[in-house]
Amino acid sequence: MKQFFSIDDVSDLKQLLEEAKVVKENPFELKGNIRNKSICLLFLNPSLRTRLSSQRAAQNLRVNVTIFDVGSGGWQLEFTDGAIMNSDKAEHVKEAAAVIGTYFDLIAIRAFAKLEDKDYQEQVLSQFMKHCPAPVVNLESSTRHPLQAFADLVTIEAYKKTKKPKVVLTWAPHPRALPQAVANSFSLWTQAAGYDLTIAHPEGYELAPEFSGNAKVEYDQRKAFEEADFIYAKNWSSYSNYGEILCKDSNWMVSEDKMKLTNNAKFMHCLPVRRNVVVSDAVIDSKDSLVVEQAENRIVSAQTIFKRLLS
Amino acid sequence: MKQFFSIDDVSDLKQLLEEAKVVKENPFELKGNIRNKSICLLFLNPSLRTRLSSQRAAQNLRVNVTIFDVGSGGWQLEFTDGAIMNSDKAEHVKEAAAVIGTYFDLIAIRAFAKLEDKDYQEQVLSQFMKHCPAPVVNLESSTRHPLQAFADLVTIEAYKKTKKPKVVLTWAPHPRALPQAVANSFSLWTQAAGYDLTIAHPEGYELAPEFSGNAKVEYDQRKAFEEADFIYAKNWSSYSNYGEILCKDSNWMVSEDKMKLTNNAKFMHCLPVRRNVVVSDAVIDSKDSLVVEQAENRIVSAQTIFKRLLS
Amino acid sequence: MKQFFSIDDVSDLKQLLEEAKVVKENPFELKGNIRNKSICLLFLNPSLRTRLSSQRAAQNLRVNVTIFDVGSGGWQLEFTDGAIMNSDKAEHVKEAAAVIGTYFDLIAIRAFAKLEDKDYQEQVLSQFMKHCPAPVVNLESSTRHPLQAFADLVTIEAYKKTKKPKVVLTWAPHPRALPQAVANSFSLWTQAAGYDLTIAHPEGYELAPEFSGNAKVEYDQRKAFEEADFIYAKNWSSYSNYGEILCKDSNWMVSEDKMKLTNNAKFMHCLPVRRNVVVSDAVIDSKDSLVVEQAENRIVSAQTIFKRLLS
Repeated sequence: MKQFFSIDDVSDLKQLLEEAKVVKENPFELKGNIRNKSICLLFLNPSLRTRLSSQRAAQNLRVNVTIFDVGSGGWQLEFTDGAIMNSDKAEHVKEAAAVIGTYFDLIAIRAFAKLEDKDYQEQVLSQFMKHCPAPVVNLESSTRHPLQAFADLVTIEAYKKTKKPKVVLTWAPHPRALPQAVANSFSLWTQAAGYDLTIAHPEGYELAPEFSGNAKVEYDQRKAFEEADFIYAKNWSSYSNYGEILCKDSNWMVSEDKMKLTNNAKFMHCLPVRRNVVVSDAVIDSKDSLVVEQAENRIVSAQTIFKRLLS
Repeated sequence: MKQFFSIDDVSDLKQLLEEAKVVKENPFELKGNIRNKSICLLFLNPSLRTRLSSQRAAQNLRVNVTIFDVGSGGWQLEFTDGAIMNSDKAEHVKEAAAVIGTYFDLIAIRAFAKLEDKDYQEQVLSQFMKHCPAPVVNLESSTRHPLQAFADLVTIEAYKKTKKPKVVLTWAPHPRALPQAVANSFSLWTQAAGYDLTIAHPEGYELAPEFSGNAKVEYDQRKAFEEADFIYAKNWSSYSNYGEILCKDSNWMVSEDKMKLTNNAKFMHCLPVRRNVVVSDAVIDSKDSLVVEQAENRIVSAQTIFKRLLS
Repeated sequence: MKQFFSIDDVSDLKQLLEEAKVVKENPFELKGNIRNKSICLLFLNPSLRTRLSSQRAAQNLRVNVTIFDVGSGGWQLEFTDGAIMNSDKAEHVKEAAAVIGTYFDLIAIRAFAKLEDKDYQEQVLSQFMKHCPAPVVNLESSTRHPLQAFADLVTIEAYKKTKKPKVVLTWAPHPRALPQAVANSFSLWTQAAGYDLTIAHPEGYELAPEFSGNAKVEYDQRKAFEEADFIYAKNWSSYSNYGEILCKDSNWMVSEDKMKLTNNAKFMHCLPVRRNVVVSDAVIDSKDSLVVEQAENRIVSAQTIFKRLLS
């Protein structure tokens, strides 16, 4: 593994999940020599779980970790080749990525979608991967959130009762327009893991075809929930009408009565979650809610990837 | 000790002060196994001494320490049960506290009073303590600043000449409305230590009865200073007219001529201090000023508490 | 060495460059006992290389490092003696420096010029050096950037082909008014190293005499470039018309055709650099560009200084 941008960087998902299990059971056990290694976490956007779980993952590995908030600690970066930089951008990614990648042994980057047309070009991550000599890890980019999806798989693997559980990724309402990154990666990773994936959402909320893949699409949320083993709630804005909110229908909130349609499904969400908008208190506070354990597994997924890339 | 929210969490103040002495004399000596432990410091407000002394305390203990600026690094939290979260709060404390308390072995939180009516309910700290599985340490909450008071006691213990020194907590002017937290905790801790406490302030600045306790109250600052062994200056806003500034009388500034009324008293302040508003240059720059040593003892108090809670 | 504010603190430049070479070759080798030491990096301004290279330097030395963003993490400091602090400054540097210097074994400070008349008094650094009990390191002050100049010398030493290379510090255009700190230090350090220094700039951009020293001054950039071994580009605002932009002439941009006038000169810049304003893409992307290696040597210069001051 040379980088961790997407599931395409994982040639052996089964093996990776095995490694995660070992990391979870023995978080402080080290093999191989990664002494003196140093990780840099770059944030272009706010973060709670990603920021904290990545730091804890590095601490568990006993490697150094440095946080850099690009906007507040530093300055705006230019990402366009050939730009005449006489405006608000003080440094080109060519220098920034080259320098940071010289300073550290691994660079992990968070750069949300701006809900602008060129998001799917993944400019920030692709430019960093191009110009940075150290391996790059995706801490959520415009279109993907692979460490989240990896943590979600670790969670599902621990709770699934059948080899091919029915997993439902359901859209849910939200007051703000959000990226599709979590949904995109969840779709790719659950399909790669061989689960039976249904994506439920109002019309107009179809994911990009390269991300929905062979998942079943269902516009009737109640129908989707029938016999489900896992309900994964998440809001995203429209891909076809890019970045737009087409629906705020509160009937799409995940509620107790809908959970009763399932096969005693576990409830999942990547957090942060808007209570009583995305999901009712009763569901997220129930014994079947896995949201905190999912979050805990973010340490596991980050630590497993850092370990691979530093070894 | 399961948490460190207030002096009520200290069942053995004398023993705690003994432990602090040992920590101060041998800051790098470790007993017990706290290897691999990890502390998270959460800031909802700015900080200098608390932020830096807490980090140094963790470094002395050779445990990992992670800073999280909730507002700038993350997002606003919702603290109200049952809230329909369709506005500006992106995450409920239920999830935030549960997740952060899963990631780390100890959580320390700074959350100032907002000088709003419900401050005395201590919503932030109490919600974190309720939902966080790891022990919680108060780095100054709406009504209390126990690590400051503990450091103040360590300081007084080192300089007191009698078993029951006369300690005067005197209100002083300030351009802004400040919380009562430092004054409240100083009052409780000095009384618990058995000192002879007088609180001097203009009328209308009485602390809440549960904090002033059995302290003498004196409206005449000069009279209060007579025979004092320690003068502790601090501004606070009114409790009865909650959060209001009732007085800016510069005659309440601590000055050299007033210090002459004392029993060669030491001067104390928790810092940051407004020079020539709260206290004159001559007093704070004198050989009897303990403000820097007090600040230094913030490492000692934090380290002693962290050590107890992690062991 | 008791502090590192300027080249005046270096009594043995040749020896310092030797130490840097050792650090560069064996970054993780430690001699002497600096276990348990702790560095604090104070930022009054944004930073990328300085912030990250200083942290990596500390990590290489296996000492603790703490970042403090004075403005966002804390509050504004008062630097004026005798001030009546009833306005926006919450703490005087006297307390801040004394306390931070008690908490840590070394304090490193970044405080840019504000392009105000009193910049050359170096108020921030001089007040910190006065009141801080721990050694102070200059991470770029109003008039100097010695860790940058030290790194530049490490770079030139590795590439120079003659004992006394011709080094040209050339002014270049920039959309914003910038301090003279980098140019000032580069001038002093290169002259101290015995290089043949020419400073090229439009009229009105003369550095302060105490910084230009015995360097040749040349108003014709092309003429300056002839036979140069190193071209160091940098923008600065006027010193005589203090802080003003007198020229934005794009003919001063460093371009390929000008580089052809040199003795196959290496191109240098401290970064961040405005591409196609200060220097053309072709020059900075050429094999003769040393900008990333210069930046890498910032770890070396910081680590060498930290090591000296902590030993």
